[in-house]
Amino acid sequence: MTSFTESVRVVGAGLLGTSIGLALTKQGVEVVIASQSPKSVELAVEYGAGRKAKDSDAPNLIVVCVPPQLTAQIVAKELADYPEAIVTDVASVKQSILDQLIQLGAPVERYIGSHPMAGRERGGAIAGRADLFVGRPWVITPNEKTSPQGVDLLRRLASLLESSVVEVSPADHDRAVALVSHVPQLVSSLLAARLVEAKSQDVALAGQGLRDTTRIAASDPQLWMQILSANSVEVAHVLAAYLSDLQEVVAALSDLDNKANFETVESALKAGNQGIEKIPGKHGSKHSTYAQIVVMIDDQPGELARLLTEVGEIGINLEELKLEHSPSAQIGLVELYVLPTAEQALISDLQARGWRIA
Amino acid sequence: MTSFTESVRVVGAGLLGTSIGLALTKQGVEVVIASQSPKSVELAVEYGAGRKAKDSDAPNLIVVCVPPQLTAQIVAKELADYPEAIVTDVASVKQSILDQLIQLGAPVERYIGSHPMAGRERGGAIAGRADLFVGRPWVITPNEKTSPQGVDLLRRLASLLESSVVEVSPADHDRAVALVSHVPQLVSSLLAARLVEAKSQDVALAGQGLRDTTRIAASDPQLWMQILSANSVEVAHVLAAYLSDLQEVVAALSDLDNKANFETVESALKAGNQGIEKIPGKHGSKHSTYAQIVVMIDDQPGELARLLTEVGEIGINLEELKLEHSPSAQIGLVELYVLPTAEQALISDLQARGWRIA
Repeated sequence: MTSFTESVRVVGAGLLGTSIGLALTKQGVEVVIASQSPKSVELAVEYGAGRKAKDSDAPNLIVVCVPPQLTAQIVAKELADYPEAIVTDVASVKQSILDQLIQLGAPVERYIGSHPMAGRERGGAIAGRADLFVGRPWVITPNEKTSPQGVDLLRRLASLLESSVVEVSPADHDRAVALVSHVPQLVSSLLAARLVEAKSQDVALAGQGLRDTTRIAASDPQLWMQILSANSVEVAHVLAAYLSDLQEVVAALSDLDNKANFETVESALKAGNQGIEKIPGKHGSKHSTYAQIVVMIDDQPGELARLLTEVGEIGINLEELKLEHSPSAQIGLVELYVLPTAEQALISDLQARGWRIA
Repeated sequence: MTSFTESVRVVGAGLLGTSIGLALTKQGVEVVIASQSPKSVELAVEYGAGRKAKDSDAPNLIVVCVPPQLTAQIVAKELADYPEAIVTDVASVKQSILDQLIQLGAPVERYIGSHPMAGRERGGAIAGRADLFVGRPWVITPNEKTSPQGVDLLRRLASLLESSVVEVSPADHDRAVALVSHVPQLVSSLLAARLVEAKSQDVALAGQGLRDTTRIAASDPQLWMQILSANSVEVAHVLAAYLSDLQEVVAALSDLDNKANFETVESALKAGNQGIEKIPGKHGSKHSTYAQIVVMIDDQPGELARLLTEVGEIGINLEELKLEHSPSAQIGLVELYVLPTAEQALISDLQARGWRIA
């Protein structure tokens, strides 16, 4: 029976590989790290994500964390090099990788696809975090031949990472992510692309709505071309339906005094209301587990340091912090994130010390 | 000379009206509140946003905070009822309101449009906050006849609300908000609308990307139909360009092995990268104009305060700061944003003091 007391081999020391290493190491699992880039292995090891892989390693689980385009090839190599190990990957497309493995004649009974639904805009080992997967779905996509032991091992991996397992077929996975991830990426990129030629003074009026809708337009084009290439059929299917809806709205905007036109646009807005109702935990933000306290500080050198020193004196641990201010504004807004149980105490103590809470 | 020692009349006691009342009251300005709904006035008064309006009031500034469709009509009435007062509004379209006022023969030399770029998803007096406008742009759109006193008064209003004033013509305003607000609304609503017919198990895989891109799809369709109706020409113009880009991408997805098709989609993603670079930071600063320095700190109380104290000692001004760490990680990453000219000096000084720069 496979067990996590043996070692897990992580191939690829980017954001996901490093984060998996950090989380498993924290749980007392031995992690060995391999990568084509010795420098990333070094960084990940220094960061505490595990130790450097060596020839005598006998991992019972291998997690391949490399770009989608390389995934099938490296999974096949790992299956061949470690004939006892279960191999998984973390690519965000699943059917085409399985197809390639079958074509390569790989022993897919020891392969099970994974897609952890977690990420950050910044990549690289340095962005790795032990809690990257906490509370996030970890999709597993067993193929028809995947062994029950493989499924069991992956479920235990996800549980160690505090992820919740979702089990679907590779094809169902790809249809779903076309809708919830790949099409939103293109829609967002195309929206942001409209800003390129725009006047800076127009873009200067941007509010939170534009920032939210275009945040993912910052994503890496090279990575996304690999994802879109591997899932182009499903993406085109959803995007064509979106295009058709959009054409109707553009046509209707030419004369909104016409009742039918008015109703076309109104229906689109109402359908949008209905659509987001279907998103689970739609009010869940990445900060949902923390309470947010906004403190207004004078825009003077040393004010933030003074605030943080006092937060330290009060003895409450900050989970996250954000400061945004402009050189012109008189006031900076500091967002403090703390555990909900600490919120009230911190607010009263800060107010008692004269801080302004927004 | 008009002064804020006299009273400000707020017409409409929803989110914006109440927030303005709360902020001005806090600053010691007398606020009187009127609304067609006596119940909302009662609520706003109870909430501390001012007192109920009475016939003997002599406001020198009137802020009309009613739905866009009613705005011109109520601004005209207020101009007539208070022949000494400057009148502004807060609707998110400006040219069509001015056109209606001119058509009604209103004395537009005492009218100046406003559009505070602040809001919350929740509406109503109960959602009102005195700090709603702090650090946000307050757009003023003087018309050709607006008196200098009107502009001056509005600037002082914005300053009391701790907003930063942006002055543009009504037409420029409407072109800008079509791009940065109205088109993103439709793009987001249509994306969320795609979820209506989708399988729940597919939508269950939604991550932060879908949540961000569809957040504003929760907006009120009735309010948005008023906004879109008043700005349909500018919206249609931007949306048609978006549609044309989208058509190219959908066509290209049918065969990404074709080099030209691949490049079409890749260019769209790259243009998205470029587009968001143009969006200024939340409070009017551009991330891209600052140099980012990432410092690794031990996850111990006081470490961040110590870092900031030392940055202060080095004598370099922080423009922005972000901290992210997890309770489990041994290390926190602090992102410091400084003027590019200060970057190298800060890095060397921090390193000399023993800080680890990522």
